[in-house]
Amino acid sequence: MNKHFSPTAFKARLFVTGTLSAGQMLDLAPEQARRLASVLRLSAGDRVKLFNGVDGEWSGVIESLGKNSARVLLENMVREQIASSGPWLVFSPVKKSRLDMIIEKATELGVARLIPVITERTESRRVNLDRLRAQTIEAAEQCERLDIPQIDEPLKLEKLALSWPADRKLLVCAERIGAPPLATVLTQNAALFAILVGPEGGFEKGELDWIINQPISVAVGLGPRILRTETAAIAALTLLQALSGDWQ
Amino acid sequence: MNKHFSPTAFKARLFVTGTLSAGQMLDLAPEQARRLASVLRLSAGDRVKLFNGVDGEWSGVIESLGKNSARVLLENMVREQIASSGPWLVFSPVKKSRLDMIIEKATELGVARLIPVITERTESRRVNLDRLRAQTIEAAEQCERLDIPQIDEPLKLEKLALSWPADRKLLVCAERIGAPPLATVLTQNAALFAILVGPEGGFEKGELDWIINQPISVAVGLGPRILRTETAAIAALTLLQALSGDWQ
Repeated sequence: MNKHFSPTAFKARLFVTGTLSAGQMLDLAPEQARRLASVLRLSAGDRVKLFNGVDGEWSGVIESLGKNSARVLLENMVREQIASSGPWLVFSPVKKSRLDMIIEKATELGVARLIPVITERTESRRVNLDRLRAQTIEAAEQCERLDIPQIDEPLKLEKLALSWPADRKLLVCAERIGAPPLATVLTQNAALFAILVGPEGGFEKGELDWIINQPISVAVGLGPRILRTETAAIAALTLLQALSGDWQ
Repeated sequence: MNKHFSPTAFKARLFVTGTLSAGQMLDLAPEQARRLASVLRLSAGDRVKLFNGVDGEWSGVIESLGKNSARVLLENMVREQIASSGPWLVFSPVKKSRLDMIIEKATELGVARLIPVITERTESRRVNLDRLRAQTIEAAEQCERLDIPQIDEPLKLEKLALSWPADRKLLVCAERIGAPPLATVLTQNAALFAILVGPEGGFEKGELDWIINQPISVAVGLGPRILRTETAAIAALTLLQALSGDWQ
């Protein structure tokens, strides 16, 4: 929210592919050029920040800016890359605007990996990964992340559980079964957890019983009210980051 | 999410005005009748839950249902009213879909009072309180709350601070100033706190300095990334409820 204390007047922050180094000239993608020129009304000489998920954050000066093309001269690194180590989020795809909310907010909250999972009551079984990836990039640019979360192809819940890494606990958000509050089970760093939130309408009873009885799973509660899928995802990620993650 | 363990097959949950008592016949509002008939496709004999924010939650049977009218016979109380005691949220109105998100999620997270506040960079100075109130009702129906949060008329930040109750701490969400993490300052019950989140683009510097120096205020941080207004509101309410509120 508060952009006041930014040390230099950077006019935009952009995710780019390719390496970043001092003195390098970089061509932006046509849609980035259009955004700088038409939406943000920048021009040659304006300064932007650039990151690629690997080489840290760099200061760059716009050398030339047309309607569909832009060249940026890289100056110096302004922030070092730090190893990405957020929690994972396993979620059942919901309808468009609520799915968008999950992707954007999870990115802001530092999720490392987004795994769409098909459950018995999942409404939206096809997921446009390109669209979701564009949303993670936009959110990462906005929230000043240095990397972009990974997004997996959707897979079925049984498959997910059977190929799950043994050292990563899956916190299954479940209500009405008296599970302990999420805040009470955080015995390790947030980066070693994943959160699982079910579809609107909840897991089928047999499905829930099965998943919470897997050795990887810990059932957790999120208070006395019935949260929507996206609210549960945002709340659980917040608690992980605040109590055992990078908010400490 | 999981609606599996619901003890009786209630087909809807409705907020109503007026008192609730056993054996009483209740006329629903025309838009509620339309929702039951046309959207949920219910009919006479179906059971619904009713609440009014005062008398607890009641079971009712639909006696008659037309296109624009519905009568419900109240049976018995299924849940006692509990005193409402959530935190308050003071927020700068943002654009439509993100404002909707704040209202819906804050209601799900048990906010007791919503106070729109006008700051120097507030984008949307007019707020449709009727629309927001309808959203709180819809969210309360969905999340099984027993009451509806209060919504105030918007007022200016200076006015708010000068008429603030001395026993309620205002947690001012601020980034880039090294404020302590929110989770570390929760020395009292969540119901004795309010959260203040600024507009997109942040508080003006002088405005932020002024508000965090009020005796009622405690500046708090929400991690290393720059959260959008609505994300900050949801995250802060989650932490209050999980660490010192009704999620414990």
